Amino acid sequence: MKRVTSGAVALLVAAAVAGAQPPAPPGRVTVVGPGPTNSITDVPGIKVGHHTRSDSGYRSGTTVIRTEKGATAGYSQMGGAPGTKETDLLKPGGQVRAVQAIVLSGGSAFGLDAATGVMQWMEERNFGVRVAGGVVPIVPAAILMDLGRGGIFKKRPDASFGYKAAEAATTAPVQSGRIGMGMGAGWGMGTASVKLSNGYTVAAIVGLNPAGSPLDPRTCLPYGSFLELGDEFNLVQPKAEECTAAATGRGGPNDGSDNAPRNTTIALVATDAPLLDLEAERMAQIANAGLARSIRPIHGIGDGDTVFGMATTPPTTSMSNADLQAIFNAGADVLGRAVVHAVLMSKQVGNSRAGYCQQYPSACVKRAAAGK
Amino acid sequence: MKRVTSGAVALLVAAAVAGAQPPAPPGRVTVVGPGPTNSITDVPGIKVGHHTRSDSGYRSGTTVIRTEKGATAGYSQMGGAPGTKETDLLKPGGQVRAVQAIVLSGGSAFGLDAATGVMQWMEERNFGVRVAGGVVPIVPAAILMDLGRGGIFKKRPDASFGYKAAEAATTAPVQSGRIGMGMGAGWGMGTASVKLSNGYTVAAIVGLNPAGSPLDPRTCLPYGSFLELGDEFNLVQPKAEECTAAATGRGGPNDGSDNAPRNTTIALVATDAPLLDLEAERMAQIANAGLARSIRPIHGIGDGDTVFGMATTPPTTSMSNADLQAIFNAGADVLGRAVVHAVLMSKQVGNSRAGYCQQYPSACVKRAAAGK
Repeated sequence: MKRVTSGAVALLVAAAVAGAQPPAPPGRVTVVGPGPTNSITDVPGIKVGHHTRSDSGYRSGTTVIRTEKGATAGYSQMGGAPGTKETDLLKPGGQVRAVQAIVLSGGSAFGLDAATGVMQWMEERNFGVRVAGGVVPIVPAAILMDLGRGGIFKKRPDASFGYKAAEAATTAPVQSGRIGMGMGAGWGMGTASVKLSNGYTVAAIVGLNPAGSPLDPRTCLPYGSFLELGDEFNLVQPKAEECTAAATGRGGPNDGSDNAPRNTTIALVATDAPLLDLEAERMAQIANAGLARSIRPIHGIGDGDTVFGMATTPPTTSMSNADLQAIFNAGADVLGRAVVHAVLMSKQVGNSRAGYCQQYPSACVKRAAAGK
Repeated sequence: MKRVTSGAVALLVAAAVAGAQPPAPPGRVTVVGPGPTNSITDVPGIKVGHHTRSDSGYRSGTTVIRTEKGATAGYSQMGGAPGTKETDLLKPGGQVRAVQAIVLSGGSAFGLDAATGVMQWMEERNFGVRVAGGVVPIVPAAILMDLGRGGIFKKRPDASFGYKAAEAATTAPVQSGRIGMGMGAGWGMGTASVKLSNGYTVAAIVGLNPAGSPLDPRTCLPYGSFLELGDEFNLVQPKAEECTAAATGRGGPNDGSDNAPRNTTIALVATDAPLLDLEAERMAQIANAGLARSIRPIHGIGDGDTVFGMATTPPTTSMSNADLQAIFNAGADVLGRAVVHAVLMSKQVGNSRAGYCQQYPSACVKRAAAGK
């Protein structure tokens, strides 16, 4: 069921509302729960691939989100120190209404080269905007700052990372953790999805490297814990002796090999709803609320925070305001949940920040019992 | 004299107003005339380099505008099909307040790779934002669409073009014509400068490949002719038999080897005034008026029109509104004049569009007599 035009229809599928979500008024689109894999690839049409290195002085990687047929896209750029490529063409009303892929990568501005490799991969397969003589693949990109975290400043993603990540992309479930763009990020990579009662799926993937913190210093729980659907986080309040000011503060030994300041959260929110480009842009804009709820402070002058919105169904039909509003709200919440998953699944690599459950084992006893 | 705070001072230097400019009210900053070389390098601190190829299936090139010490920058993106890199960081109020270079290139989205080569050149010389372990050079870029004009679609600017253009950059006068980003552009590359009575210089460089036309079909003269300072254009009304609808129309044999539609005007306006980033952005925004006056229609949905603003003096002092307004107005006019210079100096290369003076020789008799 892809269209909800009356409240009665929505009510029929509203019974499965998960977790501690606010109750939905009659007639509203409601949250059914996480998608089957609780990851970005729950959105039909999305393939994700990573290329990751933590050898030979590297600790970085690239994540490619690509589609077979192109996808409508928009973006929102809120941090004060972004690194982006091909974002101007995402402005609504332009000629290009579909992207072949979006690249999220480590490597600071150098890492934008990963998009070059994705363009190469796409051109070899004839994916892109058709022009006389060939195609121009549309591959917007954003980066986060992880230079030097593997020990050697110049070991960073280049075009080959993008090519290999595009080649590796599949519809398989994405596991949060230190992979792709998350390898060098302060808190790794996270993903989550949500199924709505109107039949649409909304999902997010995030590279979590903010100047701010995803942890509430009063509780040492992730700020975004309250967004939980069902028991996906499965946290308990950590013991007082684990939750100290030093544990959540910055500048400690867990900040990375070079104690470089963290900055930048990059993300993509995707849906199978048939959004127009300006609706995809609005989805990206509102998804910033999910970052605001799960990271504090957010959008620092040194952060390059950038969120892409992607819709995999061509906008051949128009959406109701109720459906649009539900998708935008879901985009914010699913991105906040992806942030929490990044935190929970971040493991120590080399001399990187310790994983959350390494640092606060008492918070994770139920997760450990469940084998996570 | 860098500061005009009273009308009396401005009047002292207002005598040399050139050409047919509107008379300045008392107390206003006035136009003295073109700078010494009437090119972008009249702005102190600006170096320009090109890498150009028209062999082996190539007909494209890259232009790099770089500074020794970094420059304040902003941009305005008005066309509906842009190709840009590192423009989000130019938004005012962000962390990065200076760029090392700006790249204007052929090659459509592929040509953004030219910026990679400039970053490499800069990193080798330790130019860029200092971070732990190294530097991150800030090199925004925009491209125009000239793919296939040399006969082979895949012969287009890559990183090596940017590296070589950065290496070639000097303070030498820039000659308008088929060079750098102008090689594959419909109308080539143009540049111009203006000296103001407040002591500041404003200059522009443009790659002219618009879907619209720079020629008024009623007269076959460039729309921007009325912006002339002194006799820099030196045109006369072309003979009626040269000025026909077919001559100014699109789709004729002069449209390029593959008859590909033209699109995109990319430009940079520079000044030695100490502009803030938001003032550099405003300079770029208002410079679009210069494109509007010299090209019609402008900012098409298929155009990637992008204008950068660059200020080579650090903004350690604040500018008066009168000075700012004069610089912004000058930026618009100098960009319109640069468009006309591109038109006038565009020569046929291979089976490209014929140069203006080849097509309308009677318009150029005075220019020919002057050896241009």
